[in-house]
Amino acid sequence: MTQPAHRAAKRYIYRWGAGQAEGDGSMKDLLGGKGAGLAEMTKAGLPVPPGFTITTEACNDYFSAGERMPDGLWEDIRAAVAVVEEQTGKRFGDPANPLLVSVRSGAKFSMPGMMDTVLNLGLNERTVAGLVALTGNERFGADAWRRFVQMFGRIVLGVDGERFEHAFEAVKEARGVHQDTDLDAAALREAAAAFEAIVLADTGKPFPQDPWEQLDLSVKAVFQSWFGKRARDYRDYNKIAHDLGTAVNVVTMVFGNMGDDSGTGVAFTRDPNTGEHTLFGEYLTNAQGEDVVAGIRTPFPIAHMAEAMPAVYAEFKAIGERLERHYRDMQDLEFTIERGKLYMLQTRSGKRTALAAVKIAADMVEEGILTKGEALARIEPGHVDQLLRDQYDPAARKGATRIAKGLNASPGAAVGRAVFSADTAVEWVARGEKVVLVRVETSPDDFHGMAVAQGILTARGGATSHAAVVARQIGKPCVAGCAELVVEYATKSARSTTTGATFAEGDWISLDGATGEVFSGAIPTVSARYEEQTELQAVLRWADEIRRLGIWTNADKPEEAALARSYGAEGIGLCRTEHMFREGERLEIVRGAILVAAAATRAKAKLAAGGTLDAEESAVVGRFDAAMGKLEVLQQGDFEGIFRAMDGLPVVVRLIDPPLHEFLPNLEEQLVRVTKAGDAASAEDRELLATIRSMHEQNPMLGLRGCRLGLMIPDFVKIQTRAILNAQIAVKKAGGNPIAKIMIPLVGHVNELAATRRLLEAEAQAVEAKAGVTVDYKFGTMIEVPRGALTADAIASEAAFFSFGTNDLTQMTFGYSRDDAEGGFLLKYVEEKILPVNPFQTLDRDGVGQLMRIAVAKGRATRPDLELGICGEHGGDPESIAFCHELGLDYVSCSPFRVPVARLAAAQAALVGAAERDK
Amino acid sequence: MTQPAHRAAKRYIYRWGAGQAEGDGSMKDLLGGKGAGLAEMTKAGLPVPPGFTITTEACNDYFSAGERMPDGLWEDIRAAVAVVEEQTGKRFGDPANPLLVSVRSGAKFSMPGMMDTVLNLGLNERTVAGLVALTGNERFGADAWRRFVQMFGRIVLGVDGERFEHAFEAVKEARGVHQDTDLDAAALREAAAAFEAIVLADTGKPFPQDPWEQLDLSVKAVFQSWFGKRARDYRDYNKIAHDLGTAVNVVTMVFGNMGDDSGTGVAFTRDPNTGEHTLFGEYLTNAQGEDVVAGIRTPFPIAHMAEAMPAVYAEFKAIGERLERHYRDMQDLEFTIERGKLYMLQTRSGKRTALAAVKIAADMVEEGILTKGEALARIEPGHVDQLLRDQYDPAARKGATRIAKGLNASPGAAVGRAVFSADTAVEWVARGEKVVLVRVETSPDDFHGMAVAQGILTARGGATSHAAVVARQIGKPCVAGCAELVVEYATKSARSTTTGATFAEGDWISLDGATGEVFSGAIPTVSARYEEQTELQAVLRWADEIRRLGIWTNADKPEEAALARSYGAEGIGLCRTEHMFREGERLEIVRGAILVAAAATRAKAKLAAGGTLDAEESAVVGRFDAAMGKLEVLQQGDFEGIFRAMDGLPVVVRLIDPPLHEFLPNLEEQLVRVTKAGDAASAEDRELLATIRSMHEQNPMLGLRGCRLGLMIPDFVKIQTRAILNAQIAVKKAGGNPIAKIMIPLVGHVNELAATRRLLEAEAQAVEAKAGVTVDYKFGTMIEVPRGALTADAIASEAAFFSFGTNDLTQMTFGYSRDDAEGGFLLKYVEEKILPVNPFQTLDRDGVGQLMRIAVAKGRATRPDLELGICGEHGGDPESIAFCHELGLDYVSCSPFRVPVARLAAAQAALVGAAERDK
Repeated sequence: MTQPAHRAAKRYIYRWGAGQAEGDGSMKDLLGGKGAGLAEMTKAGLPVPPGFTITTEACNDYFSAGERMPDGLWEDIRAAVAVVEEQTGKRFGDPANPLLVSVRSGAKFSMPGMMDTVLNLGLNERTVAGLVALTGNERFGADAWRRFVQMFGRIVLGVDGERFEHAFEAVKEARGVHQDTDLDAAALREAAAAFEAIVLADTGKPFPQDPWEQLDLSVKAVFQSWFGKRARDYRDYNKIAHDLGTAVNVVTMVFGNMGDDSGTGVAFTRDPNTGEHTLFGEYLTNAQGEDVVAGIRTPFPIAHMAEAMPAVYAEFKAIGERLERHYRDMQDLEFTIERGKLYMLQTRSGKRTALAAVKIAADMVEEGILTKGEALARIEPGHVDQLLRDQYDPAARKGATRIAKGLNASPGAAVGRAVFSADTAVEWVARGEKVVLVRVETSPDDFHGMAVAQGILTARGGATSHAAVVARQIGKPCVAGCAELVVEYATKSARSTTTGATFAEGDWISLDGATGEVFSGAIPTVSARYEEQTELQAVLRWADEIRRLGIWTNADKPEEAALARSYGAEGIGLCRTEHMFREGERLEIVRGAILVAAAATRAKAKLAAGGTLDAEESAVVGRFDAAMGKLEVLQQGDFEGIFRAMDGLPVVVRLIDPPLHEFLPNLEEQLVRVTKAGDAASAEDRELLATIRSMHEQNPMLGLRGCRLGLMIPDFVKIQTRAILNAQIAVKKAGGNPIAKIMIPLVGHVNELAATRRLLEAEAQAVEAKAGVTVDYKFGTMIEVPRGALTADAIASEAAFFSFGTNDLTQMTFGYSRDDAEGGFLLKYVEEKILPVNPFQTLDRDGVGQLMRIAVAKGRATRPDLELGICGEHGGDPESIAFCHELGLDYVSCSPFRVPVARLAAAQAALVGAAERDK
Repeated sequence: MTQPAHRAAKRYIYRWGAGQAEGDGSMKDLLGGKGAGLAEMTKAGLPVPPGFTITTEACNDYFSAGERMPDGLWEDIRAAVAVVEEQTGKRFGDPANPLLVSVRSGAKFSMPGMMDTVLNLGLNERTVAGLVALTGNERFGADAWRRFVQMFGRIVLGVDGERFEHAFEAVKEARGVHQDTDLDAAALREAAAAFEAIVLADTGKPFPQDPWEQLDLSVKAVFQSWFGKRARDYRDYNKIAHDLGTAVNVVTMVFGNMGDDSGTGVAFTRDPNTGEHTLFGEYLTNAQGEDVVAGIRTPFPIAHMAEAMPAVYAEFKAIGERLERHYRDMQDLEFTIERGKLYMLQTRSGKRTALAAVKIAADMVEEGILTKGEALARIEPGHVDQLLRDQYDPAARKGATRIAKGLNASPGAAVGRAVFSADTAVEWVARGEKVVLVRVETSPDDFHGMAVAQGILTARGGATSHAAVVARQIGKPCVAGCAELVVEYATKSARSTTTGATFAEGDWISLDGATGEVFSGAIPTVSARYEEQTELQAVLRWADEIRRLGIWTNADKPEEAALARSYGAEGIGLCRTEHMFREGERLEIVRGAILVAAAATRAKAKLAAGGTLDAEESAVVGRFDAAMGKLEVLQQGDFEGIFRAMDGLPVVVRLIDPPLHEFLPNLEEQLVRVTKAGDAASAEDRELLATIRSMHEQNPMLGLRGCRLGLMIPDFVKIQTRAILNAQIAVKKAGGNPIAKIMIPLVGHVNELAATRRLLEAEAQAVEAKAGVTVDYKFGTMIEVPRGALTADAIASEAAFFSFGTNDLTQMTFGYSRDDAEGGFLLKYVEEKILPVNPFQTLDRDGVGQLMRIAVAKGRATRPDLELGICGEHGGDPESIAFCHELGLDYVSCSPFRVPVARLAAAQAALVGAAERDK
């Protein structure tokens, strides 16, 4: 490939120095983060050593030219060096007054795995002498040369660093010393000579003495490092494009190792752990940057400088404040002091903990640096999430032994003793133990154990398995589908097939639900409570002022509803009634009803058509109605609790949704039971097996569930409707203000909704008439089937509200069974970038989002006052919330623990929206 | 409800007579079919007795007025009668010259269950005398009165007909005669008197003597019959709206029973069984219409009239020809001859057999009556279908005993002896028996039995069960999911829980795959061969001239391909490669490969990343590659056969689609096997169970299949691609012209297609390079996932063609698992009109069709020359074909046996399209 002629005309170099800069802070794409920062600091009048940046474009052209300097670049570099020579009065390669530079990589995003800095470039055997003469310090000169040969040899020439270390050790051994600082100039020169010999042996060429050759090689080495394996992997992992390229910064050397009035250090303008408004960092006197990193000497805290070098400290502090106000964010600074003069080498936004992020944002609003909106924009939603969950002590977690890794099903830290059954969990907790419940997979029968455990670990099941869903709902950390774990109930133990590690009942284990990791032992945790986090509360109040989206919650129980309300939820967007069917005595009642549901429904149809029932049919109807009656009473109680907890706020109640066989024992287990018993199997067991089998479905996700169920066996939804209305009436009579929105799920055709609604409206009106009280209720539907979205114009004619059920909508739009996909091909799809993200975590705008857009437009065309919300898990995901804001939904609904995050994310979406309107 | 004032202004009556008519043949909505026909015939100058039609609107207003004659209607009726009186010179109720009329219901669609005709209305004790005087025939008068009292009493007054019969029998017994015709005038008068007494006893009122009262009651009775139970049921079943209403025709009586120069009859203008161009029908002399229907006397064939009444016959024949040319269709006529004068009482398009439909259409083009397009429009697609399948002899079928009813999974008549295993089927067929294979459900292991059986009957499984899909594919009749049938392999017998009927091995049974019925015994069949059906071939050649859509076929084997080609298929739109994996030795090879596929793929990835394999890993890779190598050779042979059969025509090969566990034994069976064996279970069986379980999916429809499979285990699709290319090369070297379109299934995101295509293009190019031959192949995709349709613009950038997989697209768009839904709630949905039709039979335009429309528009926007087809089962459904035509697809693809139907339907769609453009 040859170089196109027009390339020569490009501007590859941007200079700074003497208070002037050709670039500025906005040019990170072209100059990288570091180069843009240096230009901006220079422009701001801060003391920055002169230098120049070779653009990212030059890097890309280097590769497209077949790893050759593009035409004209070298000439431009020489010209730029000449300007620096003029500004410093020094000359490159001049033995009398040599210009030395550092060469640093600097991409748009800070990226480990790219080239380290090469310091002291420009030194050779002749210029070393000049350096000694200028500084009057022979050891300094010898050490500078030794460092340069070692660094350049390793980084630029690719010599194995250990070979230099061995040679250096040999020199120290020969002199019987342990510390570098104990070596004199002669020893350091000897070491440098040994390094040069290694370079010659390894590369077949002598160490380059020509500074220009050194510079040429260094620039190319920076370019090459862009496609180094670690850099490439890092970009893959962090989804950074490979075609951004890296810039190269060539900066005049300043020396922190010129004596005790010199030094070098790093500092944050505020404490990155707590957010406190105080300089935070460390420095070393008489040292170069690499010494701070290497950790050979213990650096001073930055506060020490206030006493040791009060003037420099004052200047540095002032610069920090200026930079903070300039960038309007907490800054991470690098500096060097050369003989009492302060030089700034880098500034960038500092990384911080969740706690610090929120405190800094709150403080900066107080200080007038940021508006509330800007402060909100600076806080990552993940930070808010972190603040509300127990955290492992980071140091302790670092040292812990990992046993296994599964799916990160519900975030948080859980520490407890392993137990292998729900009953054991309850027993142990009753006697004051903390436990982690370990199961192959969980079922509704395990709920009591899950409720008391610190966390849940399962070997089977995906991110929507019973364990995962329940854990998220009740806010317990959970690692699910940990396939490498062989769980044996017989021996009450588990073994990882990957690490070979085992643990038994009573052993302490620690789960990290955010990463899916399982550790042995008890890792100490740090907890945080919302009611104590006044800064967070303040920030979220600002969010409430700014956001347009309502924040509702998915809650099935009064306690959950109350918790969510304390977190700021403005309604319940999804109350799943079937969870109410699953606990304790209820499951038995429900199972009894299901076994006769089909027969009872047939008998009732016969009656309605004017037929008469035989004794058996009457008995079946009696059993069924009795069970239904009990359920109605129990559900009414549930609803009363919820309406009281959400008094005055809307509650969207979804009628029964899952296929009925979910309430029956597992087919395989029953089959094994009957097969094992052989001829001795009881008639009940055989009959139960037959019933389970007759209700078995190939693809239950797409089977008899949702509104289909209500249309086939109307009693289930009739009693639910009566329970809702009667609960409203009871709460209203007690002075409350219950607001119900009755949601009919899985509607794909308007007729399904219309037929169900007719049925239930009659029930509701009958309840009201009987009580002589009217209450506030409306009927609406979930949009979760693609056809529902596509025909939303028709469906809106029967619905007062839509709630997007984006879990199912995503499953059907992609054709993915989440349970099957997430542990399988979907993992690979995301890893290999076939999909940009897991669409069950972040809404797929192009596909699922397109359906939502169609549904919003068509729905509102039919019914302009249609209320629109989302109640899938995406309702708690910030990117998805932003999309819902763009779509113009009225609210998002998420689990109680995600409510604070959602408040922030909704405000951020509104801010972005406002910014784009202002453009 | 009271009558709105404006109703009085409506025109409720349309008169005809004396060569003039107020209505015409186009007004079926308002006048009903009969009334429109009478008006049209009158206008055409044919001899029609004068009369008038009371409109369907009057009927609807009657009901909305609370079952009262709408204002003004009665006055209009009286005025219309007055006009008829003038035209006939007779007067209603005039003893001297009485006007008698018939009153007949007549809706838009002919509908059994509505009111029969009332003849002789206007008779009473006084007018009877006038009739006798006029005819000089006392017995005629007495008989007319007896008939009228009986008919009016039963039909209008609702008296139980049996009571009249008993009284009539008593009169005959008293006289010792058996035939009505043996009774004299006195006896008939006695009978009439007895009838009058019954009416008085039953209704509490004397028989109405006032002709106006008779007319009033009759008109109301016709109106009431519109909502009679049988009429209502019929409309429900035939999807006819309940708000059409019925018209009432009042027609001057003419008498076929005035002597031997009188008569009455029905005739078709052509033979409705064979289509032959000859009058076909029968008549009775000296009889009224009801006598022909009652079957008391044997009527003459219509040809007899040519000798008996040559002038009347000639006139009737001429009228038939005229009406045929007028309506441009074969007519079904009713006529009466009164004293040598012919009257036409009805004309309508005649029902006909498939054979007749095609022959008549072909003949009418020859005769210049119809254009080819018109002829095509007259043939029902179902007719073409029927002509290509064995049919039961209709009379024999009528007398057969029905055992049970299941799903109509694959049409056609199958007669054979019941066998309960595939091996028995093969054995018995080898010794010359015809068998029907009866199974609880079928699996790939049963294929050899299905292939030799006359038909397949299963107790379990829906319309896409293995049995159903394979049966349609190989053109065998199949009744699937016959749930009422308890099949016992142990006793080799089956019992219906509904009828209680049983049959055992060796018993003859007959299936009707078009209705899902199972009969006992062997019903005789009639077969028809395409190559002998020259009229059908001619008609389909015209269809080819007119249609724009290409007609391709779904065929997996050379024989199927050849058959489809003989039926006119212009390409293969879907060649399913996995069917090739299922037969005989192949299934074992495939299972062997699947058991090690995951491990082998991991080992290969390790190798590719530079790792080395241990002995076990190498062995696994060796086993896997050996199996794959065998499959590649076998598949290449398959493809060579197909490319030869379709030489010069395109062949769309779909790469492997179903989840791999479909090739493994059933989980439940294996679980039972291992559980039964207990500790004695073999290691292989345990391992197999573990593998099956690890591959088990919650919702396999939405799991690891289609392109996902190819991306997870690339070898499967790689060997398929090599087999295709090598087959093309072999066929091309032998002088053929093989054209391959390689179809990647289940694409939801463009990246899936892009990644798979890169992988396979490399394989294809390597094969070509190795052979030194290039062949014609392209890559494309199925659009069967909603997201694929929604993002068709992106996907088209990687696809040369789209084929809509509307089976899966329907499943996902509705969220229906077809296997689960069709035997369950979908049945009820269609019955209760929640869905207008089963969307798996006829494409859902609003939902699935909307996605297709989006995909067509977006796909063509990216790639204007994108080739678009459909390969779901809808490709053979006429309504769906019409939609595909509207959408602008390039072709539809259907099973070989549907190709002729599709050719016709495509032409009909083009004709409708042209007609609409002409509007």
